[in-house]
Amino acid sequence: MSRTLRIILAQLNLVVGDIQGNLMQLINAAKLARDTFSADIILFPELSITGYPPEDLLLRKTFLNAAIEGLYEFKEKVHGICCVVGHPYLTEQGLFNACSVIHNGAFLGRYAKQHLPNYGVFDEGRYFTAGKETCVVSIQNIPIGIVICEDLWFDIPVQQAVKQGARLILAPNASPYEINKHTTRLRILTQRSRTHAVPIFYTNYVGGQDELVFDGDSMVVDATGEMCHHAGFFTKKLMPVDIEITDIHAKIIPTPLALPSEEEQIYQALVTGLRDYIKKNGFSGTLVGLSGGIDSALTVALAVDALGKNNVKAIIMPSRYTSEISMEDACALVHTLDITHEIISIEPLFLAVQSSLTIKEETSLTQQNIQARCRGILLMALSNQTGDLVLSTSNRSEIAVGYATLYGDMIGGLAVLKDVPKTLVYRLANYRNQLNPIIPQRIIDRAPTAELAFNQKDEDTLPPYSILDKILELYLDQEQGIDEIVNQGIERNTVEQVVALIHKSEYKRQQAPPGIRIHHKAFGKDRRYPITSGFKQ
Amino acid sequence: MSRTLRIILAQLNLVVGDIQGNLMQLINAAKLARDTFSADIILFPELSITGYPPEDLLLRKTFLNAAIEGLYEFKEKVHGICCVVGHPYLTEQGLFNACSVIHNGAFLGRYAKQHLPNYGVFDEGRYFTAGKETCVVSIQNIPIGIVICEDLWFDIPVQQAVKQGARLILAPNASPYEINKHTTRLRILTQRSRTHAVPIFYTNYVGGQDELVFDGDSMVVDATGEMCHHAGFFTKKLMPVDIEITDIHAKIIPTPLALPSEEEQIYQALVTGLRDYIKKNGFSGTLVGLSGGIDSALTVALAVDALGKNNVKAIIMPSRYTSEISMEDACALVHTLDITHEIISIEPLFLAVQSSLTIKEETSLTQQNIQARCRGILLMALSNQTGDLVLSTSNRSEIAVGYATLYGDMIGGLAVLKDVPKTLVYRLANYRNQLNPIIPQRIIDRAPTAELAFNQKDEDTLPPYSILDKILELYLDQEQGIDEIVNQGIERNTVEQVVALIHKSEYKRQQAPPGIRIHHKAFGKDRRYPITSGFKQ
Repeated sequence: MSRTLRIILAQLNLVVGDIQGNLMQLINAAKLARDTFSADIILFPELSITGYPPEDLLLRKTFLNAAIEGLYEFKEKVHGICCVVGHPYLTEQGLFNACSVIHNGAFLGRYAKQHLPNYGVFDEGRYFTAGKETCVVSIQNIPIGIVICEDLWFDIPVQQAVKQGARLILAPNASPYEINKHTTRLRILTQRSRTHAVPIFYTNYVGGQDELVFDGDSMVVDATGEMCHHAGFFTKKLMPVDIEITDIHAKIIPTPLALPSEEEQIYQALVTGLRDYIKKNGFSGTLVGLSGGIDSALTVALAVDALGKNNVKAIIMPSRYTSEISMEDACALVHTLDITHEIISIEPLFLAVQSSLTIKEETSLTQQNIQARCRGILLMALSNQTGDLVLSTSNRSEIAVGYATLYGDMIGGLAVLKDVPKTLVYRLANYRNQLNPIIPQRIIDRAPTAELAFNQKDEDTLPPYSILDKILELYLDQEQGIDEIVNQGIERNTVEQVVALIHKSEYKRQQAPPGIRIHHKAFGKDRRYPITSGFKQ
Repeated sequence: MSRTLRIILAQLNLVVGDIQGNLMQLINAAKLARDTFSADIILFPELSITGYPPEDLLLRKTFLNAAIEGLYEFKEKVHGICCVVGHPYLTEQGLFNACSVIHNGAFLGRYAKQHLPNYGVFDEGRYFTAGKETCVVSIQNIPIGIVICEDLWFDIPVQQAVKQGARLILAPNASPYEINKHTTRLRILTQRSRTHAVPIFYTNYVGGQDELVFDGDSMVVDATGEMCHHAGFFTKKLMPVDIEITDIHAKIIPTPLALPSEEEQIYQALVTGLRDYIKKNGFSGTLVGLSGGIDSALTVALAVDALGKNNVKAIIMPSRYTSEISMEDACALVHTLDITHEIISIEPLFLAVQSSLTIKEETSLTQQNIQARCRGILLMALSNQTGDLVLSTSNRSEIAVGYATLYGDMIGGLAVLKDVPKTLVYRLANYRNQLNPIIPQRIIDRAPTAELAFNQKDEDTLPPYSILDKILELYLDQEQGIDEIVNQGIERNTVEQVVALIHKSEYKRQQAPPGIRIHHKAFGKDRRYPITSGFKQ
């Protein structure tokens, strides 16, 4: 005997804490799935009522109550389709990261996540108690197992569900983007489905939430471990998948997938994270201090791609050290992007600070920081006047070694490139220019300079970025020690200098704006280092 | 038969990550305990080799290796006394929060913490695997049980140790100060010791570590639950305690204790946190922007008490809105404290910013923020020149509702009053003046004002601080909802206004300097809120 189920993977962009807004999205999606797609089941992402991650909102009783009220409202309002909805669930045994299976006003089952990630950016052990029970529900007489996100990374939950008869697995997820994350997810899904000969339906969020970006990547993997459906990256989608279940196997008709390049994925992650941070926080406009250098050029390009040219304003703030080509290139970029701009010299301000203080050496670090902070004060004043949000332009390499001025170029509501190393900044600029050439080639070609002193070059102070970024990858991402890095052929002095700078600038990072995370170990919630520390290796 | 043991509680001030420095302190303390006190046992705090909390240093192999090398070095170097030393311990089963019992170059036993706190400021679930084994070691033929910190908050670990014959319990701790923490600790210790009729020796850290302050409060509780020895608060101490163990009971001769007042404890916590942040980070001097108001007055008083008058410099930065009495009071304070000061008008700078921009309304928020940021730029320039650290003076009430300028008065390396509500600022000022009157009474008596506009008063914008602080306590510390707070007799409009301001200013707090934590829920690691959030209740 054979039965066919139509399952919708709901790849949605929800907002943390906006229970009423999320509910409306879930209800609309479920009705669309029922009426337009004639689907049997709709599978929402993890904690879909609250958005992910709700963080310490989960410690508030009023929040948990509102989430449960939202769940019951959903249950009453959606009939005629079976829905898998994620929500926090408080019982006498503790708070669970749960999902409920709802059909025609009734709960068919409820599952509580068994494996709670408590590493990297995840703090689920802070809030939740681990579930212990397998959940297999019968939908149209087909036994279906449910697991949540991290559960897939371990063998037992799927194994137990299959042991209890599950013919397919539904998995709601909240899995943020990282470079290569798709590959990792697919590897896990392949392994799990193949081992237990069961298809897995994997739904994930799309959209930005503070430092996190969810890339979608919802997919279906068949019982042989082959990916056969994919909902795409960085786009909302209701993806219908038909599965034919016979007594001996479950069959899914495959569709092909073309993976975007790494640069495209990263660029889209930044665009998505930027757009959602601005929109979800109620801003429309942004301000970017444009220097004529590559970081602010890429930032403004990303902002225009994310928000449209009418929502980005460039502020060009030259000083006595600003070269002519910087001004030309900044103006050329503004012209190409067709965005409004303002040119405000920092000289009067710089002179006023100097006259208020007695600063001797003209090229001292103090003088350089003053310039960066003069720009900061102007940008923030404009932001206060217009209500536009300032985008910070510092990149990951600079922030790692503290080559940035706190309260100066580090100001802003969002640091778009905070997790983008300088070498990747170039790759992304080149990628963007391939679509259509917007960043003047000279910006890409010239040697990086902060222009806070005459003829200054970044490489006067720092190792070449190719070497710096290599050290950062080994030291920060791979957690290697100094000796290990030196053994890979990088000069010890350079490694020690960089490592010392990383430790020394911890205090700056802890006052930095949030940034969009694209690495496994970024400088946000996934880096929890003491400022006061005697460990310098 | 009766035997007497002399046990030293080592209430030490260690430095996170400074393994060699900590080792030297541990070795010196052990030798002193052996040679001067003729002690049998010395009990160090939790993770004493690494300091607490090491945070993500625990994710680095080189750090874990260095800690274990430190442990072995200690084992070789200290003979003739039994030592209980805390350290991280990596095995094939995972990383454990362990302590080793060391005697004459041998390990007598090793215990791994069973209950790992993963709430509030604690992230132990991120790093450690929970131990499962009870540890009872025989020292001079007396069976002694070991538990670590959080283990005491549960019944099983002590129960199991006693069941396996333990006649007394040694407990290394890393328990940070909070208001009323001593009472909580004593309650737990009393309950635990009385239930199992066993004396407990409790050692804790003293000293500051970023936002945390350890208050010491090491103590011994006898088998009836009575506290009979106390090592004092906020001071290093090697406290010898003799215990006479007969076949039927363990007897400790009690010493009396006078608890300091709450104001004194808090004041000492702030002094300790401030002093250690400055010293452990290699600074000597500090800069404080002095306004003539109560917050900067208390901050500078704390700084002088912590660091001495030669290490505190006041910068007075008047504007057109600064009243005469503010100048007089600031100068009076500087005079009383006998600290150096500088007066720098912000007018030239303020005018320069205004001339660079077109700002219409003179009293707009933009104008006010510009003034605060002019002060910020001057303070930071002085900090860059001198190497002195800027102390931020914003209090908890302001930071809660965002009544502070990001990159303006919020700048600094440490926000001393970040966790001190305005009403407590007054209590502490009065407490300090009782010791000797240093803060001019007029500063305490006048209505709070930011002086960023003519005749401005904080209460023009905010509810009276007595009401504001009450709402903050109920909403932040007790996690109550709006309705609950209103039911306690506070006007709904006011509650809703304050709650809205709290949510709206999350982005500011996430770029704020670290502060010294004195509440159970402060604005540091114990507050993990999304910036992007639709939950406004």
